Amino acid sequence: MKAIVHIALKNGVLDPQGKAVADTLTRMGYKEVEAARIGKVIELDLEDGLSKDAADARVKEMCEKLLANTVIESYRYELAE
Amino acid sequence: MKAIVHIALKNGVLDPQGKAVADTLTRMGYKEVEAARIGKVIELDLEDGLSKDAADARVKEMCEKLLANTVIESYRYELAE
Repeated sequence: MKAIVHIALKNGVLDPQGKAVADTLTRMGYKEVEAARIGKVIELDLEDGLSKDAADARVKEMCEKLLANTVIESYRYELAE
Repeated sequence: MKAIVHIALKNGVLDPQGKAVADTLTRMGYKEVEAARIGKVIELDLEDGLSKDAADARVKEMCEKLLANTVIESYRYELAE
C-alpha cells in the first residue's frame, strides 16, 4: 500500500523559499509570475497486509509526530493500493 | 491563473532525504514503513489575462530553466483558472 502525504504551509505563514523562486523567475523575465508557494509530497511505501483503517490511523500519527510541523504546516494524505 | 508544478526524483535516483524519513519513522516504531520518497509542489500565481497556451509554454520553460533539475528530476504541471 502507498500513502501520498501532501504538506503545505498554512495560509498567512511567510514562505521565503517561495518568494525566492518568484523573485528569481521575475528576474529571469517571467513577469507574469505574481507569487509562488512551495509544498512537499512524501510518498510512503507501507508493507502489504495492512487494513485501510489501520494504515489511515498510523499515517495520521506519522504526520502529526514527524512529517508535518503542525504549527505552520497543514497536511492531507491519500492511501493507494 | 494558477500553475501547480509537481517535481519528483527520477526513478533510480537515490533519495537520501526520503531514506532519512523512512529510517526515522521505523525507529519511532512505524515498522510498516518500507520506503519514503520526497517530492516538491510549487504553486505559481500567474497574472490574469494569459491564454492557456501561453501559460503552458511559459510554465514548461520555467520548469526546464529553474524549477526542476532535469538531470535527476521529472516534472509535471497543471493549470487551473
